[in-house]
Amino acid sequence: MKVGVIGCGFFAQNHLAAWQAIKEVNLVAVCDQQRQLAEAAKTRFRAHQAYNEAEEMLANEDLDFVDIITTPASHRSLVELTARYGKHVICQKPLAPTMKDAKAMVDTCKLAGVTLMVHENFRWQGIIQKAKQMINSGKIGDPFLAQISFRTGYNVYSNQPYLAADERLVLYDMGTHIFDLVRFYMGEVSSLYAQTHQVNPDIQGEDAATVLLRHMEGTSVAAMNYVSEVEHDEFIQIPLRIEGSRGSLEIRRDYQLNVVSNKQLTSYHVPPTNYSLGSSLGGAIMESVVNIQRHWVECLNTNSEPHTSGADNLKTLELVFGSYESAENNIVYHI
Amino acid sequence: MKVGVIGCGFFAQNHLAAWQAIKEVNLVAVCDQQRQLAEAAKTRFRAHQAYNEAEEMLANEDLDFVDIITTPASHRSLVELTARYGKHVICQKPLAPTMKDAKAMVDTCKLAGVTLMVHENFRWQGIIQKAKQMINSGKIGDPFLAQISFRTGYNVYSNQPYLAADERLVLYDMGTHIFDLVRFYMGEVSSLYAQTHQVNPDIQGEDAATVLLRHMEGTSVAAMNYVSEVEHDEFIQIPLRIEGSRGSLEIRRDYQLNVVSNKQLTSYHVPPTNYSLGSSLGGAIMESVVNIQRHWVECLNTNSEPHTSGADNLKTLELVFGSYESAENNIVYHI
Repeated sequence: MKVGVIGCGFFAQNHLAAWQAIKEVNLVAVCDQQRQLAEAAKTRFRAHQAYNEAEEMLANEDLDFVDIITTPASHRSLVELTARYGKHVICQKPLAPTMKDAKAMVDTCKLAGVTLMVHENFRWQGIIQKAKQMINSGKIGDPFLAQISFRTGYNVYSNQPYLAADERLVLYDMGTHIFDLVRFYMGEVSSLYAQTHQVNPDIQGEDAATVLLRHMEGTSVAAMNYVSEVEHDEFIQIPLRIEGSRGSLEIRRDYQLNVVSNKQLTSYHVPPTNYSLGSSLGGAIMESVVNIQRHWVECLNTNSEPHTSGADNLKTLELVFGSYESAENNIVYHI
Repeated sequence: MKVGVIGCGFFAQNHLAAWQAIKEVNLVAVCDQQRQLAEAAKTRFRAHQAYNEAEEMLANEDLDFVDIITTPASHRSLVELTARYGKHVICQKPLAPTMKDAKAMVDTCKLAGVTLMVHENFRWQGIIQKAKQMINSGKIGDPFLAQISFRTGYNVYSNQPYLAADERLVLYDMGTHIFDLVRFYMGEVSSLYAQTHQVNPDIQGEDAATVLLRHMEGTSVAAMNYVSEVEHDEFIQIPLRIEGSRGSLEIRRDYQLNVVSNKQLTSYHVPPTNYSLGSSLGGAIMESVVNIQRHWVECLNTNSEPHTSGADNLKTLELVFGSYESAENNIVYHI
């Protein structure tokens, strides 16, 4: 399969490394508005061609699919361009700055007969998957409460300076991941209530958010911020605890998964598969990126819908935008 | 000071032991509808007299104050009876089954010129107080998020069988404590949103509740249940974490208080003062009971208002009843 990658910035390095690790995929072309980034990626990941204009790449290359890793504001035009060329497309999260844009992108891809997947990688961490298997196996009974947090003092602004200028920050940038996880574990959401704070005075958006979600069955709490000074920073390793009618499970740091089932504790150590691909963000991120990209290849091979297809991701995005509406108006947002 | 105690059941044993430990207080009389409980308390704690009728005790004894440890439904009549006799009064939590009752009790005591304190003991644990001092000293900057939980598999129904029949369970019985703590740390609440679940099929009320509270400054999350099977049961030792603009603090099990301030971690070990008074619930409970009862004596001596006076506790109770209203109607409750 031949892939063309659009966007060769910070996080794209992980995508590119993962494509290199997936034997079935051939990195045909890379593209970035900043030509030197495209050239650097071409060299580093041995792509055949570098472009600084997406349409030129699409017109010149015989691609099977395109992988877009650009800032959210550019997603719609790039996805729609790719769909016009009849290519399947992966798009980074958050899919779009508005629900209207996101829905239009999903519709466009459907009409064009191309598959759209949002690159929601968090659920593809090995330990996250293992916890899901535990729940599916009935070990903890029926889950009634999930608590998940992502509290970090990691300087997200150094790698992605545009984040400091975003009026919508942590719910938009991180909430997409966290809400995908609560849906993964607890199923669909019927309503939610959110509160936000701006703690760091030097940015434009909210850097702390806490959301209480009502699922068809059960409750979840998502607490996230980019302003933490805590003993154990939660960047990448996402602490999670889920309680059920017959037990509970907890993901702790150092890839520890503790499961209490019928009053018996079992501890699992589930470190990420190390791909030695030099991700600056650590093994769990690289593992999840490789896994979701492998899933994508399998979906194309079997003509099946990706777990986090565009249509699926609309449900996650609604939780993001619903949270803003809830926090701004101090109301319960109903899905 | 001469105290008469009304109610000699399960939790009263802690009150009685604490009165015995406070030299300034003389345990004059004990009273319980079940005479054998009153007689047992008289013997165990060397009271002068045992009664099975509260008014008889009030008429016969020259008391300085009365300490009521009975089921909530009986609180109003007993507090009002005590006020009619012109005695200061301590009442166990929850103060009353309705806001109307609670307000009437506060008004009655005010008119009678007697002091009313609700026995909200949790905030009097040494480690809880130490954490508050850390916040007051500015170590973590301005707090923006408090997360507190109380998840237990402890069989609360064995010592207090009436709990299994209560249509209002964990928010009413435990939420009073937890909401007192969030007010203690984060100040007054302006609105809240709650979700409840009944997990145990053999009881009448909700045994799991999660509440997101909006404070004048900051947010708190209170998660409580009586149905947990977790690795470390949280009965008595209440995990708490608070994040601020310049650091964070966390109360962990084994009385560990970890404070991160300006990126420096300091760990404190704050075990409860051991009064060797044989509380079946452990040292932290006994410590907090002794501390609040000492506070009460000091308030009477200095003619000052107890921290958790009846009037103060109306604010906590409103969070309890507001949470039920929020959960039942899936709305934000505004204070």
